Amino acid sequence: MHHDTLRAVRWQDNQLCLIDQRKLPAEYQVINLNTAAAVALAIKDMVVRGAPAIGVTAAYGVVLAAQAAYQQNPAHWKTLIQTDLQLLANARPTAVNLHWALAQMQAQFAEIHDDPVPHLLAVARAIHQADIAANHKMGELGAALLPENCRVLTHCNTGSLATGGYGTALGVIRRGYELGKIRQVYADETRPWLQGARLTAWELVQDHIPVTLLADCAAAALMRQGKVDWVIVGADRITANGDTANKIGTYSLAVLARQHGVKFMVVAPTSTIDMQLATGDAIEIEERGAEEVLNLGGQAIAAHGAQAWNPVFDVTPAELIDALVTERGVCAPPNVANLLGLWNI
Amino acid sequence: MHHDTLRAVRWQDNQLCLIDQRKLPAEYQVINLNTAAAVALAIKDMVVRGAPAIGVTAAYGVVLAAQAAYQQNPAHWKTLIQTDLQLLANARPTAVNLHWALAQMQAQFAEIHDDPVPHLLAVARAIHQADIAANHKMGELGAALLPENCRVLTHCNTGSLATGGYGTALGVIRRGYELGKIRQVYADETRPWLQGARLTAWELVQDHIPVTLLADCAAAALMRQGKVDWVIVGADRITANGDTANKIGTYSLAVLARQHGVKFMVVAPTSTIDMQLATGDAIEIEERGAEEVLNLGGQAIAAHGAQAWNPVFDVTPAELIDALVTERGVCAPPNVANLLGLWNI
Repeated sequence: MHHDTLRAVRWQDNQLCLIDQRKLPAEYQVINLNTAAAVALAIKDMVVRGAPAIGVTAAYGVVLAAQAAYQQNPAHWKTLIQTDLQLLANARPTAVNLHWALAQMQAQFAEIHDDPVPHLLAVARAIHQADIAANHKMGELGAALLPENCRVLTHCNTGSLATGGYGTALGVIRRGYELGKIRQVYADETRPWLQGARLTAWELVQDHIPVTLLADCAAAALMRQGKVDWVIVGADRITANGDTANKIGTYSLAVLARQHGVKFMVVAPTSTIDMQLATGDAIEIEERGAEEVLNLGGQAIAAHGAQAWNPVFDVTPAELIDALVTERGVCAPPNVANLLGLWNI
Repeated sequence: MHHDTLRAVRWQDNQLCLIDQRKLPAEYQVINLNTAAAVALAIKDMVVRGAPAIGVTAAYGVVLAAQAAYQQNPAHWKTLIQTDLQLLANARPTAVNLHWALAQMQAQFAEIHDDPVPHLLAVARAIHQADIAANHKMGELGAALLPENCRVLTHCNTGSLATGGYGTALGVIRRGYELGKIRQVYADETRPWLQGARLTAWELVQDHIPVTLLADCAAAALMRQGKVDWVIVGADRITANGDTANKIGTYSLAVLARQHGVKFMVVAPTSTIDMQLATGDAIEIEERGAEEVLNLGGQAIAAHGAQAWNPVFDVTPAELIDALVTERGVCAPPNVANLLGLWNI
């Protein structure tokens, strides 16, 4: 499997097919979904994760919702679909791409006067294709920022599995490696869900890009040894001033990078930017169940009786980010003026 | 089981009994050892871990070594024992307490002219008792530094399991909690070996001290929310200037603590201080096998083909440490003059 064919989300035979990312890398299993409720549950349970992939998934979820609503009553499908849209919108709170994709789909409703399925499927496919194209564009823009012989550190998974395909931060790493500019890729294992160890390593091994994993808390020692030039991460929501919500641990890396003179890059499509929010303080941070910290692969790893705090994201202030790479261009540094400028290029 | 009776290391019926810390908390199993080679292997394989506990274990290991050497040839036991002493010395490279304990034991050899076992056992027991007493003393001294209503964050395990009994950093937390000064204990899970989740949580739950675990990389977000007053950790080796080698992730916490105005305390007996080394740059940092990062509880968690970097310790520069608490007093801040002063009190 090569990165140009690996797809976390795929529409096939009139249903939505998701790779079950909870089971990778031990097991490669594809789940087929036929209802919006099942799609919402798959997002909530992290069958699919990664802000752009969630957006694409939600778009296809709207197709399934429209199909059901239209079958129920062709005259009133735009009303009947609302319950499903709400289910999808509530699946996960932090990633804004989900809401962005739902808004893109809903914006088409007014122009549809017959069976909505072909129309909406075309829009969902366009959103999916646009995301892949954006990733390739960001790959070019991000890789151009890297010096020769670059050593990079990434966190979580931002590759084909987290997006429509190719990847955001991992897209930059793929392109940088392809260009011969990257000589070492480090990946945080990314507790508690181990996206780095399970997903990022899996993707890179398939692309024959050597990857060295490390415990998240070892990143500071690695930086102190002078072995990292750029930290490259994705984003789940970026506010108007450039503050960035991303996987828990990102903020830690940003503080440590600045302290060690390491550059810090965020790579995300403009669908991740929420210009409605002024700063990161306004972002709702999802907290998931303690069991994700207390257990691993079904086995208890912590002492019985311990509690756990399990925030899924943290917020990195814009001032710790050297470059925000989007498909519309690079904000270096990210700030309100530079972000607004993305739509005026 | 209460902290005053929980002992990771115990001499009983002429053998050394160790709790197998690799199996906690799922399984409580005690291993009985009769040879120094078995003791060295137990240290190397982390049946027992924690710098002070390793020191106590090594002291008892010398008793077993002397027993075997004396049985082999009473006239030449001091020569015959050298191989075993070397085995013990090489079991793990970073913790200095191991070498300190071996030196304490060897210093007695010249005065022994008959069966060495009763003499050396008395010395090993004294080392063990002195470590427990030191921990109680440090508990008092460290707790005195804490404000009322304190929220503390600790890393790794520094409790009864890591010492002769009671604990260093965890001793301070126990005493602080007992005095009513601590209202919240956070513990990093401490990848890759999960000492926090497996051992620290286990000890605290038994002492009815509520504990909240978090993924190591979430500590920065916790500090940013203003929820930590003191980070309290142990040490594996402290150099003459106060630089401190401790569990990987400690340096990360120290940098983050300073950035967030959080105080940072190191708690360790003077047997952890290596005045022979000027600075932390001279400390040999043990790297263990990649499999500790790539697997967990016997199951692969990372993609096949990924590599891993697994340093066991990192070095925190003295300037990031607000207080070094020893059984001889507190160095605040730790520096050469203050450390030398510990022996002149």
